[in-house]
Amino acid sequence: MTKVINKLNLKEACIHAARAVIAEQGVEGLSMRDVARKLAISHQAPYRHFPSRNHLLAEIMRRCFEDFADFLDTTSKAQPADELGAMSQAYMQYADHKPLEYRLMFGTPWPEPADHPDLVKHAVHAFDLLRNNLLIRNAGHPDAKKRSEFQALFIWSSLHGLASIKHANVMQHLVLSHGVENQAQDFMLEMIDAALVSDRDAFFERSDAA
Amino acid sequence: MTKVINKLNLKEACIHAARAVIAEQGVEGLSMRDVARKLAISHQAPYRHFPSRNHLLAEIMRRCFEDFADFLDTTSKAQPADELGAMSQAYMQYADHKPLEYRLMFGTPWPEPADHPDLVKHAVHAFDLLRNNLLIRNAGHPDAKKRSEFQALFIWSSLHGLASIKHANVMQHLVLSHGVENQAQDFMLEMIDAALVSDRDAFFERSDAA
Repeated sequence: MTKVINKLNLKEACIHAARAVIAEQGVEGLSMRDVARKLAISHQAPYRHFPSRNHLLAEIMRRCFEDFADFLDTTSKAQPADELGAMSQAYMQYADHKPLEYRLMFGTPWPEPADHPDLVKHAVHAFDLLRNNLLIRNAGHPDAKKRSEFQALFIWSSLHGLASIKHANVMQHLVLSHGVENQAQDFMLEMIDAALVSDRDAFFERSDAA
Repeated sequence: MTKVINKLNLKEACIHAARAVIAEQGVEGLSMRDVARKLAISHQAPYRHFPSRNHLLAEIMRRCFEDFADFLDTTSKAQPADELGAMSQAYMQYADHKPLEYRLMFGTPWPEPADHPDLVKHAVHAFDLLRNNLLIRNAGHPDAKKRSEFQALFIWSSLHGLASIKHANVMQHLVLSHGVENQAQDFMLEMIDAALVSDRDAFFERSDAA
């Protein structure tokens, strides 16, 4: 690994090594000691750039969210006619192609975020792409903001749930009919569309009163 | 822990200790060595009951699925008028109250299931509670089986996604309007209902042809 440290700087080398540790042992297994061992440097060296293991993890996650938001944004802007559909497709594509990054962002406990405002900022930005898209669709409703947030959480939950179930490789055991596993995502996107166009005014009125 | 081993048998003590290791270090951190250390027994002793770490893990997961399916079944039978709604509520309740068990079943990679048919059997049984409920609702449709499977995957994905997002404690950072976090689950159950009653015949026709 000495070559890597010469080429990149130590900070980048730590991030690189930490990602390798996470890939091998899961995020719970990440320690500063392992990072140092992987780079064949002193146990103290990584602390020059990261005050703690959680700061290192937060920086890795922050970069994931940044990359993820860029991907969602670019892909959905390329299909202005159905930005929301394109964004949902892009979400699932990212989860498929970058399972490690996906699991880091959405499948593992976050480091205590009070110390990591940049991580929170980038994560919220990814959510805002969805929330703002819905805000435009809901323009004219008196409760557009709240409505968009409920809808955004519903869409995100559905996409995230299916992505996680796919990662767990569990569908193959459910003895599903031919084609169901492959088309589950298309069906879910249709269900989301169908749910969004349904009139939920009664819910939002109750919710206002609550 | 010696008292525990006297009281229960060694097999149960291993399971008990393994759950404690998982709670402390995550499932990736589970090793037979840790289990033995926790029980202050020889490193070889746990192998008397479990050929490998994965067999031990599979038995823990199998019991989780058994407990989970019992809970879903009992709770939904208690509300025959809206069994599906009751089952969904029960699902979310279980995820809230037993986060460790929930994450074990649905949030971590399974041990290679070829060796663990009982684990698969119990997991599929839990899914079948949902699938069979939908099968009754879809009775009369020529494609009732396939339709029920698509719907079951959609419902499960949505519930699982929301449960995971709740566990990650991420909602607090999204600066949501008042009431949205607390009512996100109720809203999602309404969206699922709305999606289920919508006519998706065109999708199922395409799906038959695929």
